[in-house]
Amino acid sequence: MRKVERFMQEKGLSVGDYVRIIEKDNGNKSIYEGIVMNPYELSTGETLTLKLDNGYNIGILVDQIVSVEIIEKAKPREEVEFEEVFPKRPELPNVAILGTGGTIASRIDYKTGAVHPAFTAEELAKAVPEIFEIANITPKLLMNILSEDMRPTYWVRIAHEVAGILNNGEDGVIIAHGTDTMAYTASALSFMLRDLGKPVILVGAQRSSDRPSSDAAMNLICSVRMARADFGEVAVVMHGETSDTYCLAHRGTKVRKMHTSRRDAFRSINDIPIARIWPGGEIEFLRKDYRRRTESEVWVDDEMEEKVALVKAFPGMSTEIIDFFVDKGYKGIVIEGTGLGHVPTYVIDSIQRATEEGVAVCMTSQCLYGRVNLNVYSTGRRLLKAGVIPCEDMLPETAYVKLMWVLGHTDDPKEVREMMLTNYAGEITPYTRFDTFLR
Amino acid sequence: MRKVERFMQEKGLSVGDYVRIIEKDNGNKSIYEGIVMNPYELSTGETLTLKLDNGYNIGILVDQIVSVEIIEKAKPREEVEFEEVFPKRPELPNVAILGTGGTIASRIDYKTGAVHPAFTAEELAKAVPEIFEIANITPKLLMNILSEDMRPTYWVRIAHEVAGILNNGEDGVIIAHGTDTMAYTASALSFMLRDLGKPVILVGAQRSSDRPSSDAAMNLICSVRMARADFGEVAVVMHGETSDTYCLAHRGTKVRKMHTSRRDAFRSINDIPIARIWPGGEIEFLRKDYRRRTESEVWVDDEMEEKVALVKAFPGMSTEIIDFFVDKGYKGIVIEGTGLGHVPTYVIDSIQRATEEGVAVCMTSQCLYGRVNLNVYSTGRRLLKAGVIPCEDMLPETAYVKLMWVLGHTDDPKEVREMMLTNYAGEITPYTRFDTFLR
Repeated sequence: MRKVERFMQEKGLSVGDYVRIIEKDNGNKSIYEGIVMNPYELSTGETLTLKLDNGYNIGILVDQIVSVEIIEKAKPREEVEFEEVFPKRPELPNVAILGTGGTIASRIDYKTGAVHPAFTAEELAKAVPEIFEIANITPKLLMNILSEDMRPTYWVRIAHEVAGILNNGEDGVIIAHGTDTMAYTASALSFMLRDLGKPVILVGAQRSSDRPSSDAAMNLICSVRMARADFGEVAVVMHGETSDTYCLAHRGTKVRKMHTSRRDAFRSINDIPIARIWPGGEIEFLRKDYRRRTESEVWVDDEMEEKVALVKAFPGMSTEIIDFFVDKGYKGIVIEGTGLGHVPTYVIDSIQRATEEGVAVCMTSQCLYGRVNLNVYSTGRRLLKAGVIPCEDMLPETAYVKLMWVLGHTDDPKEVREMMLTNYAGEITPYTRFDTFLR
Repeated sequence: MRKVERFMQEKGLSVGDYVRIIEKDNGNKSIYEGIVMNPYELSTGETLTLKLDNGYNIGILVDQIVSVEIIEKAKPREEVEFEEVFPKRPELPNVAILGTGGTIASRIDYKTGAVHPAFTAEELAKAVPEIFEIANITPKLLMNILSEDMRPTYWVRIAHEVAGILNNGEDGVIIAHGTDTMAYTASALSFMLRDLGKPVILVGAQRSSDRPSSDAAMNLICSVRMARADFGEVAVVMHGETSDTYCLAHRGTKVRKMHTSRRDAFRSINDIPIARIWPGGEIEFLRKDYRRRTESEVWVDDEMEEKVALVKAFPGMSTEIIDFFVDKGYKGIVIEGTGLGHVPTYVIDSIQRATEEGVAVCMTSQCLYGRVNLNVYSTGRRLLKAGVIPCEDMLPETAYVKLMWVLGHTDDPKEVREMMLTNYAGEITPYTRFDTFLR
C-alpha cells in the first residue's frame, strides 16, 4: 500500500468524499476544499488529489497535510426512482438515455465525485438540466465499459435494449458511448436494427466535463433534440466545429473519428452529414434522403460471425498474415488496401487460396476517402479474378462490421458478395459527392 | 489465343502501332486513326482497342473491321544518348528524374504507344516540353514496378541511386513513383538520406495522361521547379487543388494519400505543407522551418529491419495476431490504436509478452489526425506500463517505416524508444497546429 492509500485509510477517506484540507508547506498554510479523487496508479503514491470546485485537480503531498475534515461523505450508489423525481410531462416526447461508459458518462462521475460512471436522472439533471426541458428523460446504465473494450456481443445487447425501449413506446433512444469505437458501434446498430422508424443517437464527449472545454453538455443537448426529430435512423451526434456553435448528425455507417482529441473529431466520410443541430433548437437537415419517423416495429437481426479480421496492406507486408487467418478458421477478411484497393502482388496467391477455402475477402482503401475500383489497374483485375469483393466507398471499419453481419446470415460466396454490395443502411453511396472530401 | 490476338497476329499489328482502320457496322462505314492498345485481359477478346488522337479509347469489334493500314510502326525501345539530343545549357540547373513505374510513367507510355513505361529524354520532351526550359533534365528508368509492389529493398536501391546522383553534382532529384505507396517511400528516403542538402522530390499522377483530366504534366513541372529550389529535404509534390492551379510540396514524413482518385489526394497530416508551387514559376514557402540547400555530402543510412508489422486495432480483434508476430520472430509491431492510442484491454497481456521478449511495440492512432496520449485513460497507462512506445503525432505508416529503420540500428529497448521519440526528419511536430485538421 502506498503512502496515499495508507493516509486515506487512516483518515477514513473514500474517493468521492468532499473534504477540507489544510496543507503546510515551509510555513505557508493553504486551505483546499474539494472532492477526493482516485489516486493515480502511476504516480509516486505520495500525493492526494482533490478536484476543486472550479473543476481543476490539485495534488497535495500527504506529508504536508496537517488537517483533514470530511464535509460530506461520498453518496453511495443509489437506484433513483426516475418517475418519482421527474414526473413525466405529457407535452414532451419521451427519450431514453442508455449509458455504456466512456468520457461522456465520466462527467457525472466527476461532478458527484463518485468513481463509478453512474447515470441517474438526478445526476443528469445536475449536469445538463436543459435536457429535461426538451424531453422526458429516462436514463439507464446498460453497461460500464471502456469504449476500446466494446465488442460484438455488446453490440447485440445494446441493439436488443434499444429495440425493446422503442417498441415499448419511447420516441427515441440515446446511447452515451466512449468515442474510441463509437463509429464501429454505430455501424453495427445500423445493420442490426431492421425496420427502424425512430432516432437512435450515439453521443460521446472528447473532453470530460472537469475540463472547461468539455463538449459533453452541448453534445447531449443536441442528441436529445435529434432523438425527438422526424428521423428514423442510427446517427452519431457530436460537435460540428471546435467552438460551441452546432452539432452534426452523421449517418452511422459513414462516420469516423478523425482526430484524437478535437471536439469536432467526428466526420462523415464520402458523404455529407444528415443534419446540423443548433443547441437552441433548430435542426437543419442537410439532405433529403434520410428515413423519416415511422410507426414500424423495429426488430433485431443480430446474427454476427465473429471470425472476421481487418488487415491493413503495406509495403513489405507478409503473405503469412492472410494465411494465418485462413488457417485459424476465419470466415472473412477485410483488407485496407492501398489506393484504389491494392495489395503487393505477391499477396494475391494467399488471397486466392483464402477465397478457394471459402473465406470472404473484401477490399477497402486506406485512403478512407474515395472509392475502391479494381478495374483500373492490373493488380485490381487480378484481385477480382481471385474472388475479392470490392467494397465501393465503404469505410474499412464499416465493411468489417458489415462482413461480420453478412457472414452471420450466409456463407455462400455468391450471397455474401450480393449482400456486401447491397446498400442496407446508407453504407454505400451510389456516387461520390465532390464536396465531401476533408469536409 | 483470343480473336483479337489472332487478328493482330494475322495483320502484323503490334501494340503501339499507329493505324487507320475501317469498320463496317450494318452498312455504316467508319474510319478511325489511332494507336493499337494492349488487349484488355478480362475483355471478351473480340475487340481491338485504339487510342484516338483526342486521347480517348475506342473498342472496335474485330469482326466488323474491313481494312487495316499501318501508318507508323511502334518504335522499338531505344537507348537515347541524352546529352546528344539535349545538350546541357550552362545557365540551367541540373535535375535528374528517376523512373520507378506508376501512372505518371504510363503517360509517356501512352503518348508513344509503347507498352513499356520507358522514360527517355525524348519521350519526356514530347510529353512535357516545359521542363526542358526549367532545368537540364537527365531521365533514368531505375526500375519498373507497380507502386503496390514497392518494398524496403527497393527503398534502399532508390536511396543509393539518389545519393550517387546528388554527390555527383546534380542539383536535385525527382523520383517518379506510383501514388499508392509514394508516402511510404517518401518516409523511407527521409530517414535513410542523411545530411541531405538538396531537394529529393517524389512525384506521381492520379490520372494517366490519356485522360483529359491528367495531372501528370503539371505535377512534373512543379516537381522540377521544387527540385531546383533552395531546399534540402525529401518532399512529395502533387496537385494542391483539383483544378490546375498549384501544387503543394509536402514533407516526406507527414504526407498521406487521402483519396483514391482525386488529383489533390495527397495531404500533409498534423502539419502544414512546405510550399505552394505555381506552375508558372513562383514557389511560395508556407513555413520557415525547412532545410535549405547546403553543400553537404549526402550518405545513405540504409540498415532496415524488415521483420516489422503494422497492425490495426478494432473491436473484437484477436490477441492471437500479436502472439503470431511474436512467435514468428518479428522485431517490431506498430499498432494503429483507437482514439488516443488504445487497444481492447484483453490484448494488453499479449503486448506485455511481446515487449518482454524484446519486440518493440509502438502506438499510433487510426484517427490519423491528432496525437497519441497514453496518460489520459487507464488503458493508455497500462499500455505504457507494458512497455509500449507512444509515437506522438506520427502517422502510422511513417512510424512503421521508422521502426524498420530504427531496428536496423539497435535492438536495445531503451535505444529503440529513444530513437523512436527523436525527431529525425520532421516526423514529429512538437505541438499540433490547430489549422492542420482536414486541411
